[in-house]
Amino acid sequence: MTVVLRTIPEARRWVRTERTSSGALGLVPTMGSFHEGHLSLIRRARQICDRTIVSIFVNPLQFAPGEDYESYPRDFDRDLSLATQEGVDAVFHPEAGEMYPSGLVTSVGVGKLGEALCGASRPGHFQGVATVVAKLFHIVQPDRAFFGQKDAQQALIIRTMVLNLNWPLQIEVCPTVREPDGVAYSSRNRRLSAEERSRATVLYRSLRLAESLIQSGERNVACVEQQMQKQIQKMIHAVPGAEIDYARLVDPATLGGLQQIRGEVLAAVAVRFGKTRLIDNLSIKIAPERQARG
Amino acid sequence: MTVVLRTIPEARRWVRTERTSSGALGLVPTMGSFHEGHLSLIRRARQICDRTIVSIFVNPLQFAPGEDYESYPRDFDRDLSLATQEGVDAVFHPEAGEMYPSGLVTSVGVGKLGEALCGASRPGHFQGVATVVAKLFHIVQPDRAFFGQKDAQQALIIRTMVLNLNWPLQIEVCPTVREPDGVAYSSRNRRLSAEERSRATVLYRSLRLAESLIQSGERNVACVEQQMQKQIQKMIHAVPGAEIDYARLVDPATLGGLQQIRGEVLAAVAVRFGKTRLIDNLSIKIAPERQARG
Repeated sequence: MTVVLRTIPEARRWVRTERTSSGALGLVPTMGSFHEGHLSLIRRARQICDRTIVSIFVNPLQFAPGEDYESYPRDFDRDLSLATQEGVDAVFHPEAGEMYPSGLVTSVGVGKLGEALCGASRPGHFQGVATVVAKLFHIVQPDRAFFGQKDAQQALIIRTMVLNLNWPLQIEVCPTVREPDGVAYSSRNRRLSAEERSRATVLYRSLRLAESLIQSGERNVACVEQQMQKQIQKMIHAVPGAEIDYARLVDPATLGGLQQIRGEVLAAVAVRFGKTRLIDNLSIKIAPERQARG
Repeated sequence: MTVVLRTIPEARRWVRTERTSSGALGLVPTMGSFHEGHLSLIRRARQICDRTIVSIFVNPLQFAPGEDYESYPRDFDRDLSLATQEGVDAVFHPEAGEMYPSGLVTSVGVGKLGEALCGASRPGHFQGVATVVAKLFHIVQPDRAFFGQKDAQQALIIRTMVLNLNWPLQIEVCPTVREPDGVAYSSRNRRLSAEERSRATVLYRSLRLAESLIQSGERNVACVEQQMQKQIQKMIHAVPGAEIDYARLVDPATLGGLQQIRGEVLAAVAVRFGKTRLIDNLSIKIAPERQARG
């Protein structure tokens, strides 16, 4: 049976008991509304940890005013039943007031990494993510924590935070899971109209286009980015309220813009369909022989 | 024998070994250059913990450009010998490059608490303190950590950080230790000229004056602050380069200014003697009967 923990002291007590009787404790931090992406993180945690705890908490701190905090999909009963099916040992599901009693003034700042890509249109978002993850890490004290590559910027920021602040735990980043047509699983996909959902395939297509251009020898960053944008624009121009947020090639270590295409680059896109904002990314490794020719 | 640990992996290994064979682990974070204040923290840690580790690290992150990072007093051999005399189990003494390899972008923000009092003239100072303490807490994973009330703002910020980010440890704040003439021990006292040192007694005297005014029924915040400033000014006006940074009554929970004097107030002063800046503070509890009369 999956234990449900609703308060911080309950979670600490569970961890204390389970840690004595077991080895590695794995944490999968989520905002719930599970899809195949979450399940892949849970399965990986179950595979390599002795105990797996999943947190389900829609974190108000990472939503800016006007974003979709209130309407973010929530379905705890379904999530719990999926967690049970997957053999999760415990679910930590606190109320917002439990995590943020009045008087929170401490935050984890993530510097320039939090300003690139999604940070540009979501100011404060990654500070909110880093702060809640810091809290979860201190409450659960996991040996390993699991994040999805779909949120590449988040994964990089959490990895960096753990490294910079010397957290005694391992971060594992798991591959993006996609629907059959290539669209990355996201809790926000269900908000799309049928028309928007069919157009959403263009995110991954534009990433594959970037990959194919680069693998064919294209080494001009602006050219690749323009091709990506052109492809997306062509696909969404007739959809009301649809617009490109970004379509970029960036340095996978700094998320900064590139002077040159070499080694490994991260292609990253964000597209708005009305109030729903979708993201995707692809790591592109340039084969050394092509690099020499480029 | 006191073990000296110079790298983060060495410290982690020591902690792993010692924790299995013992109960509570106490951490006393310091910048070295020990005086009676440090020794009182060490003695308290030794008294209530099974193992005591003292960190000695002059943290560049908490010094602004132009402050005294380079000239901050350092005497590791003397500190180590004092630690050994006091029965400290381990000293963690990393190089700056061990704590801050290039690429640190994560920081711990402390909000408005870091902008009051000393924060006003030392921008970024408390963020630097909180960040290094966060790192030390993750490296050592103490059950208890010890700070001095002399640095009241620092102690409050660390307590708040631990509470806000749910750190699984206890903070203990120990009373200020004073020289026979009332001057609080500080590593910076040794930098004072004989004249400055004799004038430095005015910090504590002004705090006692505030206490005595309040205990006599004075309830006007501005009046008390003016009396403190007048007393300090009288004592330092003839000393070249001496000036008041602040002499305030503040809310001990928020460090914000007061409308009224009641319950408990924190009197806090900072005075510059040339490049040397001294601080002191006193918690003043107003007796309920006087409060009713006031």
